[in-house]
Amino acid sequence: MANPKSTVHTIDVGWGHCDPAGIVFYPNFYQWFDEATHHILDECGMGHLRLRTRFKIIGCGLIDTGATFKYPARYGDQLEITSWLSAMSNRTFTVEHHIHSGETEVCSGFEVRGCFVNDPAELSGIAAIPIPDELRTALGT
Amino acid sequence: MANPKSTVHTIDVGWGHCDPAGIVFYPNFYQWFDEATHHILDECGMGHLRLRTRFKIIGCGLIDTGATFKYPARYGDQLEITSWLSAMSNRTFTVEHHIHSGETEVCSGFEVRGCFVNDPAELSGIAAIPIPDELRTALGT
Amino acid sequence: MANPKSTVHTIDVGWGHCDPAGIVFYPNFYQWFDEATHHILDECGMGHLRLRTRFKIIGCGLIDTGATFKYPARYGDQLEITSWLSAMSNRTFTVEHHIHSGETEVCSGFEVRGCFVNDPAELSGIAAIPIPDELRTALGT
Amino acid sequence: MANPKSTVHTIDVGWGHCDPAGIVFYPNFYQWFDEATHHILDECGMGHLRLRTRFKIIGCGLIDTGATFKYPARYGDQLEITSWLSAMSNRTFTVEHHIHSGETEVCSGFEVRGCFVNDPAELSGIAAIPIPDELRTALGT
Repeated sequence: MANPKSTVHTIDVGWGHCDPAGIVFYPNFYQWFDEATHHILDECGMGHLRLRTRFKIIGCGLIDTGATFKYPARYGDQLEITSWLSAMSNRTFTVEHHIHSGETEVCSGFEVRGCFVNDPAELSGIAAIPIPDELRTALGT
Repeated sequence: MANPKSTVHTIDVGWGHCDPAGIVFYPNFYQWFDEATHHILDECGMGHLRLRTRFKIIGCGLIDTGATFKYPARYGDQLEITSWLSAMSNRTFTVEHHIHSGETEVCSGFEVRGCFVNDPAELSGIAAIPIPDELRTALGT
Repeated sequence: MANPKSTVHTIDVGWGHCDPAGIVFYPNFYQWFDEATHHILDECGMGHLRLRTRFKIIGCGLIDTGATFKYPARYGDQLEITSWLSAMSNRTFTVEHHIHSGETEVCSGFEVRGCFVNDPAELSGIAAIPIPDELRTALGT
Repeated sequence: MANPKSTVHTIDVGWGHCDPAGIVFYPNFYQWFDEATHHILDECGMGHLRLRTRFKIIGCGLIDTGATFKYPARYGDQLEITSWLSAMSNRTFTVEHHIHSGETEVCSGFEVRGCFVNDPAELSGIAAIPIPDELRTALGT
């Protein structure tokens, strides 16, 4: 966590984030993971606009994701999300996320992402490209 | 409601749509309004792809919206949303939405929308265009 | 806006808040309105827990809402939402919300809310009660 | 997939489910997983109301989750989600989900859930209980 590419942000749990049991509806944790990853990219000078204009990357799409839940979060809780780049391969990078409420760990998870460009030759319309060296360097690897 | 451009769809209220009071978190009603308006456009042969390729419209953006809430909806409720084109002007069209649970009215609302294209000359990057005649005709006005 | 019950908060527009046209999907504005109203109640010492334990209020449910949209907001924009109590009647209170991006107004809207308690005698399971004097005073009216 | 406790449902991808790259914002897949699991419980006669009144279970909360993404889904796609109970232990059950667009697999994932009751003795306010035999039987294990 001493990695310079880690970020820490605050999450205010809102009324609309919680379900009838009074606890956070779990897909919201993944939305917070996504926001944290975008923060890392922004802070490296590799925000969406930069990725698009420099590399034609339309988005850093998800390949694999997961989360485990350890303690319930409720309306009014102020959470802290700590996120960092934990792995990098030729075509993917992994971000880990840990969410705490004070000293208590609420949730931890990860996202494996790739860099996608439009590609009309693909049936899907998009293709993953190797992680550009410039992005690799910006992320500190 | 005998208007041929009206649509009726079913909404299954999910666990994640409801808040700690056990009732639907109200922004979800607007998401359901949006889905119903897209259904109307699709059913007129004027779905997003058609609007984009034929008129360069990037979206039928919102100008004005409103909703009143009359009866709570809860997890497991099956709602019916009835929507129709209620007004058309040079640059806007209005869709009304009524949501019922059985005989009981749960919510009613409206959306005033325009047709937006990318316009680099505008500071906002987008501009509203007059509703194309072809869309006007497709919507039955 | 000199009203002591007004609040100002920052909204960071995330990737997941935006639609394929690249602008904020409008139900998110209502989610931000909801968060701002909860902030006002919290700051008056009348947060959810207090309302529940003191008055058995399960939530300040919505009766009427509306929003107009003036300028598109996009991923990465930092918005400012200013909200204040604009009206109070026997059974309802109204909160107005204005959202700016720098000097530019993006969106304005309102929420009319009531105080709801569980009421098994009602078919809906809930009933609106008169706004408690203590809440009225806390809100500065 | 011949398991009687499997369910198949249709998902209509809406405009608001998609991000500026034009593809589904991934937390929505988890919302669809959640809806499918609730469908399984409902179809076994073990919906939320039943679990609450019979066992005081406030919700089948998440312990572990994951999803991999194989093919992009876009606005207007009609997806099919197939879900089934794949494992059961003393205190948890696992549901697997596979989402297809026609013949193409879009996404697959899992949810490990437990049965939670309110428990004022716990700091978290809730506690996991052993899966009730009646629920076990209803789920066909």
